[in-house]
Amino acid sequence: MDRRSVLKNAGMAGILAAAAAPAVHAQQAIRWRIASSFPKSLDTIYGAAEVFADAVKKMSGGKFDVSVHQAGELMPAFNVVDGVESGTVEMCHTAPYYFFGKNEVFAIGGAIPFGMNSRQLSSWFIDGNGGKLMNEFYAKYNIIALPGGNTGTQMGGWYRKEIKTVEDLKGLKFRAGGFAGKVLEKLDVVPQNIPAGEIYQSLEKGTIDAAEWIGPYDDLKLGLNKVAPFYYYPGWWEGSLNLAFYLNDKAFNGLSDEYKAIVRSAAHDAHVTTQAKYDARNPGALKQLVAAKAKVLPFPQQVMDASFKAAMELYAELDAKNPDWKKIYGDYRNFQRDQLLWFRFAEARFDSFMMAQKL
Amino acid sequence: MDRRSVLKNAGMAGILAAAAAPAVHAQQAIRWRIASSFPKSLDTIYGAAEVFADAVKKMSGGKFDVSVHQAGELMPAFNVVDGVESGTVEMCHTAPYYFFGKNEVFAIGGAIPFGMNSRQLSSWFIDGNGGKLMNEFYAKYNIIALPGGNTGTQMGGWYRKEIKTVEDLKGLKFRAGGFAGKVLEKLDVVPQNIPAGEIYQSLEKGTIDAAEWIGPYDDLKLGLNKVAPFYYYPGWWEGSLNLAFYLNDKAFNGLSDEYKAIVRSAAHDAHVTTQAKYDARNPGALKQLVAAKAKVLPFPQQVMDASFKAAMELYAELDAKNPDWKKIYGDYRNFQRDQLLWFRFAEARFDSFMMAQKL
Repeated sequence: MDRRSVLKNAGMAGILAAAAAPAVHAQQAIRWRIASSFPKSLDTIYGAAEVFADAVKKMSGGKFDVSVHQAGELMPAFNVVDGVESGTVEMCHTAPYYFFGKNEVFAIGGAIPFGMNSRQLSSWFIDGNGGKLMNEFYAKYNIIALPGGNTGTQMGGWYRKEIKTVEDLKGLKFRAGGFAGKVLEKLDVVPQNIPAGEIYQSLEKGTIDAAEWIGPYDDLKLGLNKVAPFYYYPGWWEGSLNLAFYLNDKAFNGLSDEYKAIVRSAAHDAHVTTQAKYDARNPGALKQLVAAKAKVLPFPQQVMDASFKAAMELYAELDAKNPDWKKIYGDYRNFQRDQLLWFRFAEARFDSFMMAQKL
Repeated sequence: MDRRSVLKNAGMAGILAAAAAPAVHAQQAIRWRIASSFPKSLDTIYGAAEVFADAVKKMSGGKFDVSVHQAGELMPAFNVVDGVESGTVEMCHTAPYYFFGKNEVFAIGGAIPFGMNSRQLSSWFIDGNGGKLMNEFYAKYNIIALPGGNTGTQMGGWYRKEIKTVEDLKGLKFRAGGFAGKVLEKLDVVPQNIPAGEIYQSLEKGTIDAAEWIGPYDDLKLGLNKVAPFYYYPGWWEGSLNLAFYLNDKAFNGLSDEYKAIVRSAAHDAHVTTQAKYDARNPGALKQLVAAKAKVLPFPQQVMDASFKAAMELYAELDAKNPDWKKIYGDYRNFQRDQLLWFRFAEARFDSFMMAQKL
């Protein structure tokens, strides 16, 4: 029987096609789950995983089906790394610094106080040594990390009372994201690690005195302005927050080359799309917050200086006791130093000129 | 002959598989060409198209094969839009403002003097109205545009003589990218539109008095410091330059849904990767240039102010005579105004604090 005579028989050809498919195209239908650390109501931060999942699905013609699950649906917000490490889920989307208790290096993958801004951090991860160094570290937890969005520089949060001096921080029960607490403790703040979904209630009840979340767009969604009027900036503990996709390494390594490439580009797509969303949506939200009588204030210089000093002390301590930290933060800091040098020229001068104009 | 007996015959199965492939997977092998406006020697800017092509190829298992061709290989640097419009090539990668002679709106897709910085411009395109408005405009040229990298704020270029006052600009023969010339003319500069590959020679011969290209990394590659010592900043005509992938609309619309999605995510991947490369590589190059005796200087405030005024005059003129400009720049400017408001808070305060620290 030659080829043409087989093809004349349509029924036979269909059966053969189904049988032969793996030989011509290795892509199999697979299903993955992403455990998000965030509630579905936050379309920006939770949305990053949706952008990823949607891109993967479309690029694979629906064969690589990724579902996104909000915090608490499969596991609590702060258990998602355990979920990926054990292979309970193939992926999570989270803020890496939540997991500094496992090793402080997790914080470097997300945000450290007085760290790099959004472009600088992306640059370190994508074209500097960051991606390589962090993924060598993450391998201990069966994790491969890809960028999953950045929030830009965050606001410093909502306070029931004004912060005029460093003294005003003493004893302040303050919800702050993960690793920031290590520096805040040095300023006698009492840091609280609370997931997004529980911040409003804690602040309303007075269980805490202040809370930071992200920036105008997300903070407005949580309604934090309704329970504390003073809105400080900048969130020096999150000069930018790199969100991460963590993939279970066995699951990733089991993918075809095509699917691996699809996963990588989809993560970069979600990364740039999420930063774009934050930048586009924050200005309008800030106007709404000001219209609703939020009092927007810069942290006093004294508070910034004392906080910077506390952060540098912490980093010196970690250099001495955590070899992973010493190695990776060493590279991070050199990169940051060069970035700060370069950004002083064209970038900062252009931005400051523009911010001084009436457009 | 039943299915099992066919499959026992390996030779036959191979033939059948090849014939049956389209029935099980609609993706066909296709070849596209990208005409770049840049020389291959510039791994950052030319490289954006390579990142795109490589991602598309890997994600499609090699079936969607995109080749990248440097300026002059298929067509001259400034003819690539005509090439896409006519369908001679399926895609180009270019700096949109080169084509302001067709319509000044092209410049908005790349960089306009005193325009938005990298994050702001990406945000307008990806999450604001920019992508929609620009693509409605580009449809007149059979073009669909996707982001293709950003350089960040550029340097102001290389000058044989110091620029101390606005008077020093008079009669200056200055190579500047595209649309910037329209503003420079108002300051009595004589702008020259010269592709990358010819800048060094023109400056060396003294055909021109000054030349801007991009920033430290690319400028060092072109060796511009060897022929003019004064290196000014910022390049106010390129607060950021969005590079673009232009796709012939018929070619894009003829793609399967999977390939369309692959093209979109690959463009976003190239976009974020290219900005990361510029940011990572500029600081080291700046140090090398300074070590080689480049004199790095800010443009005098008077020059910045006069240039800003000239740009705003030009935009008012264009509002009056180009309805496409009026519509799209109107949206751009509103977005920019909001961005400048918002960036003043967390982002600028954090950056300026960090730039004042010793790390």
